[in-house]
Amino acid sequence: MAGTVNRVEGGTVTAARGFLAGATYAGLKTYAEDKLDLGLILSEAPCTAAGVFTTSTIRSPSVTVSQEHIARGPVRGLVVNAGIANTCVGEQGYTDAKEMASLAARHLGVQPEEVLVCSTGIIGVELPISLIRNGLAEIGLSTDGGHALARAMMTTDTRPKEFAVSFEVDGRQVHVGGVTKGSGMIHPNMATMLAFVTTDAAVESDFLKATLREVADSSFNMLTIDGDTSTNDTLLVLANGLADNRPIAAGSVGADIFKEALSEVCVHLTKEMARDGEGASRLIVVEVSGAQDTVNARKAARTVASSSLVKSAVYGADPNWGRVMMALGRSGAAAEETKVDLYINGVCIMQEGKPIPFHRDAVVALMRGPEVTFRLNLNLGEGEAIAWGCDLTEEYVIINSAYST
Amino acid sequence: MAGTVNRVEGGTVTAARGFLAGATYAGLKTYAEDKLDLGLILSEAPCTAAGVFTTSTIRSPSVTVSQEHIARGPVRGLVVNAGIANTCVGEQGYTDAKEMASLAARHLGVQPEEVLVCSTGIIGVELPISLIRNGLAEIGLSTDGGHALARAMMTTDTRPKEFAVSFEVDGRQVHVGGVTKGSGMIHPNMATMLAFVTTDAAVESDFLKATLREVADSSFNMLTIDGDTSTNDTLLVLANGLADNRPIAAGSVGADIFKEALSEVCVHLTKEMARDGEGASRLIVVEVSGAQDTVNARKAARTVASSSLVKSAVYGADPNWGRVMMALGRSGAAAEETKVDLYINGVCIMQEGKPIPFHRDAVVALMRGPEVTFRLNLNLGEGEAIAWGCDLTEEYVIINSAYST
Repeated sequence: MAGTVNRVEGGTVTAARGFLAGATYAGLKTYAEDKLDLGLILSEAPCTAAGVFTTSTIRSPSVTVSQEHIARGPVRGLVVNAGIANTCVGEQGYTDAKEMASLAARHLGVQPEEVLVCSTGIIGVELPISLIRNGLAEIGLSTDGGHALARAMMTTDTRPKEFAVSFEVDGRQVHVGGVTKGSGMIHPNMATMLAFVTTDAAVESDFLKATLREVADSSFNMLTIDGDTSTNDTLLVLANGLADNRPIAAGSVGADIFKEALSEVCVHLTKEMARDGEGASRLIVVEVSGAQDTVNARKAARTVASSSLVKSAVYGADPNWGRVMMALGRSGAAAEETKVDLYINGVCIMQEGKPIPFHRDAVVALMRGPEVTFRLNLNLGEGEAIAWGCDLTEEYVIINSAYST
Repeated sequence: MAGTVNRVEGGTVTAARGFLAGATYAGLKTYAEDKLDLGLILSEAPCTAAGVFTTSTIRSPSVTVSQEHIARGPVRGLVVNAGIANTCVGEQGYTDAKEMASLAARHLGVQPEEVLVCSTGIIGVELPISLIRNGLAEIGLSTDGGHALARAMMTTDTRPKEFAVSFEVDGRQVHVGGVTKGSGMIHPNMATMLAFVTTDAAVESDFLKATLREVADSSFNMLTIDGDTSTNDTLLVLANGLADNRPIAAGSVGADIFKEALSEVCVHLTKEMARDGEGASRLIVVEVSGAQDTVNARKAARTVASSSLVKSAVYGADPNWGRVMMALGRSGAAAEETKVDLYINGVCIMQEGKPIPFHRDAVVALMRGPEVTFRLNLNLGEGEAIAWGCDLTEEYVIINSAYST
């Protein structure tokens, strides 16, 4: 049916026509049976590509190489490794990122400039190029290889994150699928977060770039795990056009539904990342309405979702709502205490700045579920936003005090 | 000796002439033997006063009342309670803060407008004014009452924080003493942090205000415990002039040494707060030099000190220096990777952006001490700053997931 976006069961980055993927264990992560750490995606046809990258001033040369290759023209595939970030290694980092693209291109039978490069893992360690060379040679590509790729991207993630949808445009069935990895060093403006989205839709380049940016701002950029932004964040979308629709462009047939589908994939992956945040035991959703504008709404939502004190309270299923108000107050968003309404999982806690007596045990019970939602109405304007995060647990500290040791 | 600032052994907020203090247990905190939760300071002479307050849009009416009273004129004293923040309680909050000032004034024998009001503790709970009335009646004031007052301010602090210095100006002995409390919800722009400084120096009002602001920006505002800014942050300084020096003003005799003394007290208290951050096991010091300017240096230092990943690594005595670079990169401070030098406790880890091989075990051993110092030279300009923080431990999570329960 035109007009509806449907989930593709078990969908991943190879759900769209003409995308193949695969992965292997190259030796970049500590060995464990079934572990993967190096992956490839290949499109059978050249892709229009767009990317959103870390805003950090200290960035991996892998990011630089991907930016250069996207700026240059059509893309055929990408190579990704987990375990080593290829960051802060001096000039060797750029050389290695270029070499990794070349080696992948040779294996895929395409040009080096047609391959994007992504790395994630520990900073300050050089990529062992010989291990990558040997690893690439072992990767077999297949139309359900997206699952292996999703596992190969993982660092402290406890599970792969994949999702795909389909919809009709122009009488053609179109797919949008994605994979992502978290799960620490994650805060708006992209985080140690790699996300790859593929589609068989034909999409005009400027529209793809603009839509990706817009969708990223209300999905991945509204995610916060620990307030830290990584040196390697990359979100890529590849559109190979094999669905053979008339290219989707601004205002064209299919523009709205394509954006909706892309958004659905990105929001789903964002929530999965939040749920799988380092040490997380529950998802935090912060819905802000009535803000002066979207910018203010996003500030408020992101600040509440990223507050260590709010996150700790959620871990303890503790309706310590004063911390939500504290975080709102320091967010920089325009707010007037006497206008604010606050709800926890649907229960009204504060109305127009006045605390409402609530049944504490009931709210504690609600907060013990897998999701805690704080809804704030600032009653100042029309700005809305949703942010996603996770609770702060002892496990986060344990994971991160022993990561490189 | 003129020109030197000397520590006053066991000094506190009553080290300066004419300042009396005292405290009692009024019943605002859960009872425990020796617990105190309500305190008073009285000056025998009217004081020139200045304050720095939370920048949050959601703030306690106690803050508002103190601001109003400082704006009005000379101050004679202050009342402080711990356990309840008097925040997010609707209009009752302002009424209660005014009432608390009036009750304190009656007990001190001064005017209500001459008394400042500070509260810290849980948000969203009304002050039990009858308990405060009864408590105030029990407070006896003395010249060494500062120690009791320092204990009465504490919330999750594990120990009181007090410090005093003296110096000569105009042939007169002058004292500056202070007390403070932390220890969570603490991040630059003032935090659940109350700090009171007293001096018997005569200080001209505009100079006192400007100097306090300047000193706060390089002491309390460079402290970060958990990135959260409180609704109640207050730093106050009271100068009663009983040292009988010619009033210190901008450019006058004593201006420099007064600023030095005030800074010494504030920096000392800041470090004590960092050391006693919620769950902290060690102090983090981040020294940035070579930044484009002071603003950039402060951004870089604060961001590194507040990074959850850096804090977790310090807890694990893990020289995972890539996280320091990550935090620098996301700080917003101008930085070029190829120019950065990084030292951990004096050991060079990176020079001009290139990792230097270091003896890992030796650095781990250094990091197991009570203080971990990251020194970053950005080699771009003359900007310098120091920030203080603490490691992130399981204990932080435990404290904050059970605070209100």
